[in-house]
Amino acid sequence: MTAAGGFRAAGVTAGFKPSGKPDFALVVNDGPQSAAAAVFTSNRVAAAPVHWSRQVVADGAARAVILNSGGANACTGPQGFQTSHTTAELVGEALEVGAGDVVVCSTGLIGEQLPLQTIRDGVPLVVAALAEGEAAGLAAATAIMTTDTVPKQATHRSAEGWGVGGMAKGAGMLAPGLATMLVVITTDAELPATVLQRCLAEACASTFDRTDSDGCMSTNDTVVLMGSGASGVAPEEAEFVRALTAVCHSLAQQLIRDAEGASHDIAVTTVNAVSAEEAEEVSRSVARSNLFKTAIFGNDPNWGRVLSAVGTTSSVFDPDELDVSINGVTVCRDGMIGDSRDGVDLAAAREVEVVIDLKVGVHEATIWTNDLTHDYVEENSAYST
Amino acid sequence: MTAAGGFRAAGVTAGFKPSGKPDFALVVNDGPQSAAAAVFTSNRVAAAPVHWSRQVVADGAARAVILNSGGANACTGPQGFQTSHTTAELVGEALEVGAGDVVVCSTGLIGEQLPLQTIRDGVPLVVAALAEGEAAGLAAATAIMTTDTVPKQATHRSAEGWGVGGMAKGAGMLAPGLATMLVVITTDAELPATVLQRCLAEACASTFDRTDSDGCMSTNDTVVLMGSGASGVAPEEAEFVRALTAVCHSLAQQLIRDAEGASHDIAVTTVNAVSAEEAEEVSRSVARSNLFKTAIFGNDPNWGRVLSAVGTTSSVFDPDELDVSINGVTVCRDGMIGDSRDGVDLAAAREVEVVIDLKVGVHEATIWTNDLTHDYVEENSAYST
Repeated sequence: MTAAGGFRAAGVTAGFKPSGKPDFALVVNDGPQSAAAAVFTSNRVAAAPVHWSRQVVADGAARAVILNSGGANACTGPQGFQTSHTTAELVGEALEVGAGDVVVCSTGLIGEQLPLQTIRDGVPLVVAALAEGEAAGLAAATAIMTTDTVPKQATHRSAEGWGVGGMAKGAGMLAPGLATMLVVITTDAELPATVLQRCLAEACASTFDRTDSDGCMSTNDTVVLMGSGASGVAPEEAEFVRALTAVCHSLAQQLIRDAEGASHDIAVTTVNAVSAEEAEEVSRSVARSNLFKTAIFGNDPNWGRVLSAVGTTSSVFDPDELDVSINGVTVCRDGMIGDSRDGVDLAAAREVEVVIDLKVGVHEATIWTNDLTHDYVEENSAYST
Repeated sequence: MTAAGGFRAAGVTAGFKPSGKPDFALVVNDGPQSAAAAVFTSNRVAAAPVHWSRQVVADGAARAVILNSGGANACTGPQGFQTSHTTAELVGEALEVGAGDVVVCSTGLIGEQLPLQTIRDGVPLVVAALAEGEAAGLAAATAIMTTDTVPKQATHRSAEGWGVGGMAKGAGMLAPGLATMLVVITTDAELPATVLQRCLAEACASTFDRTDSDGCMSTNDTVVLMGSGASGVAPEEAEFVRALTAVCHSLAQQLIRDAEGASHDIAVTTVNAVSAEEAEEVSRSVARSNLFKTAIFGNDPNWGRVLSAVGTTSSVFDPDELDVSINGVTVCRDGMIGDSRDGVDLAAAREVEVVIDLKVGVHEATIWTNDLTHDYVEENSAYST
C-alpha cells in the first residue's frame, strides 16, 4: 500500500496468535485528503468490526485501518462491538485522529472475545513501527495472514504520477476455512469519496465478487479503499477504474492461487449468454459443484458434471446445443461427447480453463475457483481442534 | 416391492457393468389396475430415460419399470433417446404390453451410449427371471446399485390388507458421485393415478426433497409409484400418504446412511421460523456448507460455521437471538458462545443433530445430509478414471 504517496504502514506481533507470528497491522493515510470507500460482507451474521467499520466509512472519510489476525471477533455480542470500538479509540488517540475515522478489521476463529490487554499493548507497538516504503507495506501484508502461505500485494502506477497499491489476505470473497478476505487499497489520486465508492463497487464486481473458492461467505469480509490525494493528480474516472480493477484482479488471483489445499486454479467462463448475469449464474453453478471440483482434483476433465451443474440454473440455453471445452479441447459438443479427453492433461496443469458455450447471446462472465482436495478437507476439519 | 400384491420383480446381470455384477432390474405390475405416478429430476440437462419416462406416465398408467445400472444414458442426444425407446419396446413385446407403458431408468456414467446388444440380450433374461416374493424384490434392489454398498428396501402393511413397498439406490435426491437416485414404489391399494400423483408429491416433499447429500443434482433422478389395486381396498387418502411417507422416509434415511464416503449422518433442523419454507432454507444453507461439513468430519461442533451459513439466507431472524444446539448441547446462545463444547463427543457419534432456533415463529424443517470427508473426495475424484 505504501506504493501510493501519503501512506504509512506497519505490521508487528501483538500476541493474538499463539504462534508468535505477526498479527497486528496498521495503514495510515497522511493526506492531504482522507477519502474512504468500502464494501463489506453481505452475510447477515456480520462480525463486530464490520458493524463498527460500516459506521466509520459512512461519511466517506477514514484516516487509518487497523487489522488483527488471530481472532475474528464475530458472534461476540455487545462486548465484541465494544472491543472494536476501544481498538479504534486507542489507535485514534495514538495517531491524534478521531476514533470515528479508524476502520477495524479482524480475522481468525469465530465466537471468541479478543483479549483487550493484547490490543492495549499492541497499539503503541504498531504505531511506533509505522513507516513509508516497501518493507513497511510487506510487514502489514504479512501480519494479516492466517492460513495464507504468502503475503499478497499489488500495485499500479500511472504515467501521470498517481498510483494504486493494495494488500489482501484470505482465499476468496466466499472463503474457505476461516480465511476471511481482508483487502486494503490505497491511492494518491485526487478523487472524492463518492467517486472512490463507485469505482470500488465496479472493480469488486468483476474481481473479488467473481472469486468463489468454496461457496462459503465469511462474517468478516472487508475491502477498504483510502485516497490521500498526495499526487495532486485527478485522473479520469474510467482510467482510475481500470487501474483499480487491475490491482483488485491481481489480488483476487493471488487469493485463488493460495486457496487452502487447492491443487488446481480453475477459471470457469460462460460465453454467448443472453446477459452477463446469466453467464455469471452458469459459471458460478459449475464453480460451486463439489462433484466438478473433486473431478478436477482427480485430473478428470469430467464434462458430464459440468452439464449437470449448468442444468440446475434458470439461464436461457438449449441442453442439446451446449459446448464445453477444458484447456482448449472441446470435450462436449452439442450436449454430447466431443473430442477425445486424452488431449487434456490436467495432471500436468495447475491452471484449468473451462469454457461453456451457451450459443444464445453475446455476453460472458468468468468465475475463478479451485479444486476440492484432500488438503481442503484436512485443513478445514482440523482448523479449530 | 413385491410386498404389495400384484407385482413381480427381477434383477440379473446383463453386462452393462464390467464387474459382472447384477445391472438390469424389472418391476412389473400385473394389475388389475395399472395406475402410475412419478417425479423426476428438475435438472434441465435431463437424461434420455427421463425424457422417455415423462411421456410414459403422462397418462397416469404404466405396466412396468425397467432399470439399468452401468450407464446413465445422459447427454447422449437423439441416439440415447432412441435407446430408451427401444428398451421400452423390447420389454413391452416380451410382456405383451405397449412400449408406452414401460418406464425406463438408467444410472451410471454420463455421456456414453448404452450398448444396444446388451439390452437386446438382457431383456429376455430379466423377463425370464420375474417372480413374486422377497428374493425377487431383493434381486431387483441389488441390480440397480452403483456405488451403493447395500440394497435399500422398505415396506408398510396396513391392517386393512393393503401395503406399500419400495426400493431405492443412490445417495440423495441431490446426489454425490454419479449416484443418481432411482426409487420404485409399489402399492396394491386401490387408488386412481391422480390420487397417487398427489400423494407421491406430498411424500417426496418431506423426505427425498429434504435429503441433500452434496448439493449436486443428478440428470437421472426418478421416483416411480405404481398401483395394482390387487388388495381391493381403497384407503383414505390421508392414511395412504402416511404409509407412503413412511416408506419414502425409510428409503431416504437408508440413502443418507450409505452416502459415498460419509462418516456422520447429519440432521439439520431449524425451529421457530416464520414459515416452513424459511425453516427449510436455513437448514439447507447449513447442510450445503462445505466448511460446516468438514468441521463435522473433524468431530468439531463448530457453531460459528453454522451461523456463517445461516447469515447467507434471507429468512427472518435476529443474528443476536440465534441459538444452536449440537447433539443436545446449546453451543451457541443468543448469537454468542454458549455451553461448553466439551459436552459434545462427535467422535463417538455417527448421528449428528443440529438444531437452529430462530425464535421468530412456530414452523420447522429438517434437512438430512452427511459430512464432507476424505473418502468423499477420493470416491468422486477417482470415479471415472
